[in-house]
Amino acid sequence: MFDQDHPGHNRWHPDIPAAATVKPGEDFRMDCREWTDGQILNTDDANDVRDVDLSINHVLSGPVAIEGAEPGDILVVDVLDLGPHLPGTAPDGLAGAGWGYTGIFAKENGGGFLTDYFPGAHKAIWDFHGIYATSRHIPGVRFAGIGHPGLFGCAPSHELLAEWNRREQALIDTDPERIPPLALPPNPDNALLGTMSGAEYEKAASEATRTVPPRDHGGNMDIKNLSRGCRAYLPVYVDGAKLSVGDLHFSQGDGEISFCGAIEMGGWIEFGVDLIKGGMAKYGMKTPFFKPGPIEPRYSEFLCFTGISVEDGVNYYMDATVAYRQAALNAITYLSKLGYTEEQAYLLLSAAPIEARYSGMVDIPNACASIYIPTAIFDFDISPSSEELVSRDLGSQATTT
Amino acid sequence: MFDQDHPGHNRWHPDIPAAATVKPGEDFRMDCREWTDGQILNTDDANDVRDVDLSINHVLSGPVAIEGAEPGDILVVDVLDLGPHLPGTAPDGLAGAGWGYTGIFAKENGGGFLTDYFPGAHKAIWDFHGIYATSRHIPGVRFAGIGHPGLFGCAPSHELLAEWNRREQALIDTDPERIPPLALPPNPDNALLGTMSGAEYEKAASEATRTVPPRDHGGNMDIKNLSRGCRAYLPVYVDGAKLSVGDLHFSQGDGEISFCGAIEMGGWIEFGVDLIKGGMAKYGMKTPFFKPGPIEPRYSEFLCFTGISVEDGVNYYMDATVAYRQAALNAITYLSKLGYTEEQAYLLLSAAPIEARYSGMVDIPNACASIYIPTAIFDFDISPSSEELVSRDLGSQATTT
Amino acid sequence: MFDQDHPGHNRWHPDIPAAATVKPGEDFRMDCREWTDGQILNTDDANDVRDVDLSINHVLSGPVAIEGAEPGDILVVDVLDLGPHLPGTAPDGLAGAGWGYTGIFAKENGGGFLTDYFPGAHKAIWDFHGIYATSRHIPGVRFAGIGHPGLFGCAPSHELLAEWNRREQALIDTDPERIPPLALPPNPDNALLGTMSGAEYEKAASEATRTVPPRDHGGNMDIKNLSRGCRAYLPVYVDGAKLSVGDLHFSQGDGEISFCGAIEMGGWIEFGVDLIKGGMAKYGMKTPFFKPGPIEPRYSEFLCFTGISVEDGVNYYMDATVAYRQAALNAITYLSKLGYTEEQAYLLLSAAPIEARYSGMVDIPNACASIYIPTAIFDFDISPSSEELVSRDLGSQATTT
Amino acid sequence: MFDQDHPGHNRWHPDIPAAATVKPGEDFRMDCREWTDGQILNTDDANDVRDVDLSINHVLSGPVAIEGAEPGDILVVDVLDLGPHLPGTAPDGLAGAGWGYTGIFAKENGGGFLTDYFPGAHKAIWDFHGIYATSRHIPGVRFAGIGHPGLFGCAPSHELLAEWNRREQALIDTDPERIPPLALPPNPDNALLGTMSGAEYEKAASEATRTVPPRDHGGNMDIKNLSRGCRAYLPVYVDGAKLSVGDLHFSQGDGEISFCGAIEMGGWIEFGVDLIKGGMAKYGMKTPFFKPGPIEPRYSEFLCFTGISVEDGVNYYMDATVAYRQAALNAITYLSKLGYTEEQAYLLLSAAPIEARYSGMVDIPNACASIYIPTAIFDFDISPSSEELVSRDLGSQATTT
Repeated sequence: MFDQDHPGHNRWHPDIPAAATVKPGEDFRMDCREWTDGQILNTDDANDVRDVDLSINHVLSGPVAIEGAEPGDILVVDVLDLGPHLPGTAPDGLAGAGWGYTGIFAKENGGGFLTDYFPGAHKAIWDFHGIYATSRHIPGVRFAGIGHPGLFGCAPSHELLAEWNRREQALIDTDPERIPPLALPPNPDNALLGTMSGAEYEKAASEATRTVPPRDHGGNMDIKNLSRGCRAYLPVYVDGAKLSVGDLHFSQGDGEISFCGAIEMGGWIEFGVDLIKGGMAKYGMKTPFFKPGPIEPRYSEFLCFTGISVEDGVNYYMDATVAYRQAALNAITYLSKLGYTEEQAYLLLSAAPIEARYSGMVDIPNACASIYIPTAIFDFDISPSSEELVSRDLGSQATTT
Repeated sequence: MFDQDHPGHNRWHPDIPAAATVKPGEDFRMDCREWTDGQILNTDDANDVRDVDLSINHVLSGPVAIEGAEPGDILVVDVLDLGPHLPGTAPDGLAGAGWGYTGIFAKENGGGFLTDYFPGAHKAIWDFHGIYATSRHIPGVRFAGIGHPGLFGCAPSHELLAEWNRREQALIDTDPERIPPLALPPNPDNALLGTMSGAEYEKAASEATRTVPPRDHGGNMDIKNLSRGCRAYLPVYVDGAKLSVGDLHFSQGDGEISFCGAIEMGGWIEFGVDLIKGGMAKYGMKTPFFKPGPIEPRYSEFLCFTGISVEDGVNYYMDATVAYRQAALNAITYLSKLGYTEEQAYLLLSAAPIEARYSGMVDIPNACASIYIPTAIFDFDISPSSEELVSRDLGSQATTT
Repeated sequence: MFDQDHPGHNRWHPDIPAAATVKPGEDFRMDCREWTDGQILNTDDANDVRDVDLSINHVLSGPVAIEGAEPGDILVVDVLDLGPHLPGTAPDGLAGAGWGYTGIFAKENGGGFLTDYFPGAHKAIWDFHGIYATSRHIPGVRFAGIGHPGLFGCAPSHELLAEWNRREQALIDTDPERIPPLALPPNPDNALLGTMSGAEYEKAASEATRTVPPRDHGGNMDIKNLSRGCRAYLPVYVDGAKLSVGDLHFSQGDGEISFCGAIEMGGWIEFGVDLIKGGMAKYGMKTPFFKPGPIEPRYSEFLCFTGISVEDGVNYYMDATVAYRQAALNAITYLSKLGYTEEQAYLLLSAAPIEARYSGMVDIPNACASIYIPTAIFDFDISPSSEELVSRDLGSQATTT
Repeated sequence: MFDQDHPGHNRWHPDIPAAATVKPGEDFRMDCREWTDGQILNTDDANDVRDVDLSINHVLSGPVAIEGAEPGDILVVDVLDLGPHLPGTAPDGLAGAGWGYTGIFAKENGGGFLTDYFPGAHKAIWDFHGIYATSRHIPGVRFAGIGHPGLFGCAPSHELLAEWNRREQALIDTDPERIPPLALPPNPDNALLGTMSGAEYEKAASEATRTVPPRDHGGNMDIKNLSRGCRAYLPVYVDGAKLSVGDLHFSQGDGEISFCGAIEMGGWIEFGVDLIKGGMAKYGMKTPFFKPGPIEPRYSEFLCFTGISVEDGVNYYMDATVAYRQAALNAITYLSKLGYTEEQAYLLLSAAPIEARYSGMVDIPNACASIYIPTAIFDFDISPSSEELVSRDLGSQATTT
């Protein structure tokens, strides 16, 4: 991405120049590099995950200016279609060229939702078979991917950028030495800002925010239902809107719980755009709206796990994060009884089209969460039963060496 | 419920005697009173909600003993069907007799997920039309209910009961004067413990836990997908399992966010039961599992709202509760632009079959939540558009006088 | 039905007096007897099917007059809910009181879609478990019923009645001795016409049509998707519309292929009605329209069988009936390889929520049909595989003795 | 197709040499030309449809030999993915390069299901927007395509080929002068048989069957549910199976009722193959089985039309073809009331993902059919209502000049 004639960017900043311009009503196609720009390989160890340089991510394509867009408008973005790199369009070594990966990041370098339980680096390689994914590192499953862009949004205004930096620094300041950190401040190392250069680049690189979190503009929302055919409604903060996209996923479960929990890939995406003038005030928009598309993978049978906001004997009052963590751990424990390692189960919950729901949020003092695993993704019956547990050899995820 | 020949109970305690006994493989039907035992009326003010006596809830039917059940087993419970009171089986004045209600409880008496934003008492009455509900207090919507028992589970053991009391008292002790309280300790006032009486009753009433939260055994999980045709897997802690049920809902959205956010009703439920001997250890069960049934209301178009864990300019690190609250508030704001009061919108999100998902839980520092509103439940098109907003008179919820 | 104070009817005639009157916008509930009026019993032989008196069917409830309805209007009928007889409301011996049946009728007495292949009488008794049905005569399956009224519609005008008689007699006249007959002419034996009596009854009974076929008004459409929550649009031919209903089904597959192929039951149904004045001309209506309800059983995996319009080496040009018969026979053959008798398979395809589609209707000379069997209704995996076929003892349907 | 180095074929014959060989378990990708080999253009008249040379179709890709396949095996074919020509891989003039078409063929040259009602030539051009199609000839609709190969199957054996010719000639002989013909006999004109040439070619061309109908091997089944992610089970008649494919469709309704009723395109398809040795006898297979894929477009609201087997006052005993024709005509009439021409409606029912079901096949003398139109594909509400019909200008299909 750094060496392209038309470089993208890996930080958010209002001054990154538009790489192209389109009109409302137009369709257009963009190519995207995998989020780490090719650092993770199709191998059987996870050393690359352990050692990944996170200052590089996420490499984004764009920004694309939309004619007539002004601050306060809503940018209507149709995700018309997307896919991994087409045969012959990318080197085999790149994620997206027939394969993708899911990673559990090390606590010291990235972390993740369950990093206190799984502090090491692990990964699974997935092979693409048309709409389906399988993994030599997680045998016994095959599922249709729910492909989507993990990250897209319009550029922030200068004011919004400053507010992001203010509030995130305030958070960091509450525990500046924490590992993993509470948030990531601007980092000029490896900052890529399109065609910006010189002093302008230096200034922008020092204040441009990282791309990691979802924010008011959308950004790294990682919502699996922003899939093919969806319509997203995005806030516009700068003239031309400046839409960027990246972090394509072949599939992902709700929550993307292992940090790099989607099946990561490079590929292409086709967008259609339109405008609702003055839409932000008209509809009171603070963060994006969307309508899911009509071709999400369709499952009708699920095995579901619950969790409540109690951890290690302590009641966390109405804490939905704890409830969900417990639900995830309960699911992982269950899958481990069937023959998977806990890390395989964690990777699977991250990558497969599982659903995660807020189930009860009012029954003091316990929040209740639930996770829905489609049973049809497994080659074997995972239901609880009175029959004896079958001993299966289900191999192992890739780990560090 | 208090005056029945075969009283139920409104506290959890292992010593409440079984009201009936069934065999594994049997189907049986139970009648349930609405959770407040008839305190809320089919009226156009919310004074009854404001003044409700919460020491009475939830009135539960049971316990039912299952032959052969032992601690460590999994009780398989099929929710075969359920419904509101049949014509002629309950007084018209009782919720469930052709109507139900959703309430926003006052901050001083119950509270709820958004109680800081909506501290007053409000309610909506729903009329039942077969599988559908409509409300004179929320015109413009009609939807198929996703009926379910809000609350069911097996009796705790003495040890588990003690643990519940320990951990919840520890939470209360962190802020004993809080309004609403962090948790509810045992309360002998209005405690109903089946046929228990005398000294045995007195002792049990002083230690029996309230029925409000979901706990390890399930209990008040308020999961809308525990609907008709579902199969629940429940932990067994005492001989005979002692299954109880109550708090029937005609419908509810994920989260039941307004405390009494379901459409509350009395009615009947048909269960089938079976056992997986020694299932808890075999499957590593800590809290219930379940499989949803095949006849949940089916929607394919949704308007979705997102929320991130930032509130009033403050970043709440990976806090899924804050993210969901923001998503809910964003949805409420949007619906208010269409002509609803914010309270109507809040009630509607609580009662209708909306879905609420954990969307991103790893992108520091912001959790991301999303709420899915099925557009087909509205008489009019709620989509964002470039057309001018239509001014609609959509009345008002019932409020206090 | 014959002995009730308010008898229904088992023939169509415009002069049958309304049994009740309702207003547009009203909901109302009706009770229905099983279509043979109780001739089929919960037994393990099919002698009752063989010997059934078909002059009695279908016993219908109604007619209900709708205020303001006039010829040319569309009657909007919401099927708000329905179910089998409630506990205690019907004798155990009646279908609908916890059980129902599916029958293959004898070629000499009723016939059916595959009567040339299966000329004898057979039946299966189904037990109801809430929303589910199981059968001791077809073990290994359990499914959620797609309940619906097999037969409902408004009374024909005198002109339409005469047209029905004319065209059906013309068909009969092409082969008057055929067994089974091509159509059934009016038959005064056992004709029940509500409260009609005397000379008026005699005249009407001699011209009233049988209730067997679907006709312009709807009638015995047997469309499984006219299930709970659906909205039907029916033509109105007489003042007051005169809506009647009967032939309730606990479940049925597309086509109801074994004549009495649904799971037959008595029970109750709740309707809501409204009018579109002058709707027939406005929308060019010749036969009913409808919108399915939102809670049909939801399946996502199907094993499908195809058929083309070739039978015994003969090409039947674009004959969709032959194509469907072949698809059904192919499905039956397949299921018989798994251990079912062919009659069990035939009964199952009739009763379970299978889908049957017109697949190709233009590729001369062969029509193509397909049948979709939801795999989740079976206890075991029915998919084709390279593994050896398991020998299963799956018993037998009830047959004649 | 005729000029390629590796020509395909447009007739079925066992001796056409395999163009490639794959192993069971392998995935592979094939390119396909649009079925007329480029005769239909992206224009606003239908002269090309009127004048099309039907001796050329269908141009098929293959055959592909599968190692180890023998007569009597089942070939398992996974449709892993497919799509229109990728940007830059086909001339713009070819259907599939960003656009496709649906045609009503003239009665004198092709005909179709409703050719007696619509004898002229008409067409609609569809523009592709990622997963969606829109048409300047049918404004007001936008839908996700249900892409599939209209035609695929294994080569017949010599015996089966002879049987096809025998039975189809017998049909032709019943009315040899009929227009359109009852069936198409072998036609050496424009016959393309892969690399065959010389005397071998001459002989084969004289006996090779046309590709138009679905037959025992599958072939032109035109089943819309053979879409992305489906698994088809095909009979094998010759060593190596010799799998061929063509006639790709961007979308199609059940029945493909206007002959060329799908949205026709050229493009690519990715297959995976496997074998069930001896599967035909094991499972009693006569024609293909299949399992639909998990990402078919998902709709939940439908407006449905019924039809019975009565046409022009004549009763056609249990004739499902007549019933379906009436249902289709009823739907067309309805749509014409909303502002479409009848030809637009006919094209739309052919191209959009409508469902067509056999509804009742046992209620003598009338078969009942139903057609399900997803309401969400329209920009406006198509439901019947009491409001006045809006007059809309919805343009016109392309017609002949």
